[in-house]
Amino acid sequence: MASQQFEPPSGTRDFLAGDLRVREHVFAAVRDVFERYGFEPLQTPAFERLDTLTGKYGDEGDKLIFKILRRGEHEATGEADLALRYDMTVPLARVVAAYGSQLPAPYKRYVMGPVWRADRPGRGRFREFAQCDVDVVGSASPLADAEVVCAVADALNAVGLSDFSILVNSRRALAGLLDAYGVPAQVGGGVLITLDKLDKLEAAEVARELTEARSLDPETAKALVDDLTAPDAVDRLRRMLTDVEEGREGLAEVDRLITLAAPVIGAERIAFTPSLVRGLDYYTGVIFEVVAAGMPGSIASGGRYDRLIAALGGPDVPACGGSLGVERIIGLLSDEKVTAPRLDVAVTVIDDDAAADAMDFAARLRRAGLRTEVYLGSSRKLARQLKWAADRHARFALIYGPQERAAGLVTVRDMDSGEQQQVPPDQLTVRLAAPR
Amino acid sequence: MASQQFEPPSGTRDFLAGDLRVREHVFAAVRDVFERYGFEPLQTPAFERLDTLTGKYGDEGDKLIFKILRRGEHEATGEADLALRYDMTVPLARVVAAYGSQLPAPYKRYVMGPVWRADRPGRGRFREFAQCDVDVVGSASPLADAEVVCAVADALNAVGLSDFSILVNSRRALAGLLDAYGVPAQVGGGVLITLDKLDKLEAAEVARELTEARSLDPETAKALVDDLTAPDAVDRLRRMLTDVEEGREGLAEVDRLITLAAPVIGAERIAFTPSLVRGLDYYTGVIFEVVAAGMPGSIASGGRYDRLIAALGGPDVPACGGSLGVERIIGLLSDEKVTAPRLDVAVTVIDDDAAADAMDFAARLRRAGLRTEVYLGSSRKLARQLKWAADRHARFALIYGPQERAAGLVTVRDMDSGEQQQVPPDQLTVRLAAPR
Repeated sequence: MASQQFEPPSGTRDFLAGDLRVREHVFAAVRDVFERYGFEPLQTPAFERLDTLTGKYGDEGDKLIFKILRRGEHEATGEADLALRYDMTVPLARVVAAYGSQLPAPYKRYVMGPVWRADRPGRGRFREFAQCDVDVVGSASPLADAEVVCAVADALNAVGLSDFSILVNSRRALAGLLDAYGVPAQVGGGVLITLDKLDKLEAAEVARELTEARSLDPETAKALVDDLTAPDAVDRLRRMLTDVEEGREGLAEVDRLITLAAPVIGAERIAFTPSLVRGLDYYTGVIFEVVAAGMPGSIASGGRYDRLIAALGGPDVPACGGSLGVERIIGLLSDEKVTAPRLDVAVTVIDDDAAADAMDFAARLRRAGLRTEVYLGSSRKLARQLKWAADRHARFALIYGPQERAAGLVTVRDMDSGEQQQVPPDQLTVRLAAPR
Repeated sequence: MASQQFEPPSGTRDFLAGDLRVREHVFAAVRDVFERYGFEPLQTPAFERLDTLTGKYGDEGDKLIFKILRRGEHEATGEADLALRYDMTVPLARVVAAYGSQLPAPYKRYVMGPVWRADRPGRGRFREFAQCDVDVVGSASPLADAEVVCAVADALNAVGLSDFSILVNSRRALAGLLDAYGVPAQVGGGVLITLDKLDKLEAAEVARELTEARSLDPETAKALVDDLTAPDAVDRLRRMLTDVEEGREGLAEVDRLITLAAPVIGAERIAFTPSLVRGLDYYTGVIFEVVAAGMPGSIASGGRYDRLIAALGGPDVPACGGSLGVERIIGLLSDEKVTAPRLDVAVTVIDDDAAADAMDFAARLRRAGLRTEVYLGSSRKLARQLKWAADRHARFALIYGPQERAAGLVTVRDMDSGEQQQVPPDQLTVRLAAPR
């Protein structure tokens, strides 16, 4: 913990080496998978013009945007002209609008980096947090949806997670569901929002909310909730959806995605989930969510959003994408610490005359790729310096005192066993670079 | 170029894949060197509390801080409470103050990331730019200074720069110089600022500024400028400095640093440079600047700053560090483009029945580490898809039409030679993963 006066701002974190290594392990593993899929990296500025962001995230979202005060003579106006990035999708839309024909078609890009939201900070909720998105802009092919789902699943595998399931549905299947059960159009959206709570609330509670908050007639509410929570829910819903055109189309979308992705990621890991809604209303086709054993909520999600790039100011192009809940994923991993690279060699400095030799030994070892530190303290006592080497978890310590100098040999101490041997300086790298 | 309406905010940049790969190549090479030296990574938030930053960069600096408007009910006040990171040193001081005893002693850390300054944007000057610093906090040892200089030099080597020189001086040598030439104490600071221009202005112009702007008597001004610009300037200054105590101490500091670093980085690359001043007045000991052939200004710099961490709100600990001018370094490299990883395999999709097979082939190849893309367009024409494969610079294209399916073989087309051969699907990875 940081002492209070020097803590980072509320909702933000300092990452010291240990935590940072876990994060970078995750980012590197994910990046490697996305690169193998042929996605290209993109990096946009931390801030955008304020008008690029406002109105894109709804009223609630707008309130959470960090705004940057105008500068110089305009500072006194108290007005803002810039704002910190709130997500990665609006900058993507701007980039697609800006560089259109210079981008590959389709434009497959991944992005990893911080976004900022002025949410009330809380357990696991931050004002600065990383997002990790993968998107395909400019392809309507079902293969694009399948590639996104497979890339997300492979990224989770690469990070070290394996016990997860991918829930799949389609916005058209949801429209078909409303149609098949005779839900009036004007309450459809609200009904879906309530049905989305079936994974958290009791069935009876959802049914009550459907009738009370959504004004749905009790029989329809009961039929919907009964069918969606039945052990054979998938079969029941398949039958109902097959009766209406949009339902059939939605089912076909879902089945096509599963047919393409299941052989790659394992059929047991992906399933049609008729109650999956996904809160964001910009999705237009297939939608998916990844859930992990023993973890409430989702660790990744995405879908097809063919209208969004245009709505955000870009061209009218089909698009789909996925987002890894990278902070939650890191939270799942941080117990089984990623081991820090161990210090290979600690070079002691017994007297000031040995300083240049210490630099020379360190330079040789570093050139051979060994992580090497030279003692930078003021003590000239060997015991003190060996304690430092032990504190740094060094594999080896080098000792080069008057005796060693006279003999032209360096003493190499194995810090685990305590064994010591003397080695000519020009054989140091060969001896110490040996497999651990 | 971005079309104007969709450009990133003034002074910021979008990095598409090509530019981003050059940047990441540089960061990765530098990180690798710093890790081998045993420096630990640190990452602090993009913003700090406003009062953490104000008053730390002088009046001019304060004006360039991007301030973040308060939120919610406080937004209307027009006041700021947070501000974007302006450099990496103030956050370091805060971290040292916050985590003190939890940090290794000395605390050797490196940091790479963006900082933000509301400077007037111009050629090569940005409002969002990367800084890359390495610092040792808590060691007064000359070995710490030498390690910083060597780490900076090795990082430049690793990035691919070799034609550079390291200029070394010491703040105490500069104090000794003022003493030795009898410069009155009250004009000393100004005299040094003017002498710092000897690398840009004519000697006569510097002498005039010394007498006119700094009120130095003409003889002293002439002696200083003559000695500092003479072919044997180093010898002349060594003699002068040896006459006064601070001069002797400063010379000893410089010589000790060069003695320790020269064997590691090459004696021809590092030299005592008596006219080197460095603008920032927080340095207390040795200072250095790295200059590259054909590049005005410096590409890296640093020195010892034993009072700064305390002045910035941290504990009173000795410290030294260096900073790579990473944007200038990237500017030097971007001509000799870092080659993008070539697409290994482009998988065509001749008919919809082949889509699942295409996914399967891609999955096999990706598991073998090959960068693989599946055609996501709507055309089912082979010629069109092979043009796509060529546009993506793929090494190989896979073709799997009705004939191939009947034979149970995949056609592999070498995109450079145009040669084709047929391969059983389970031998794809072996055949294509062969050395290029």
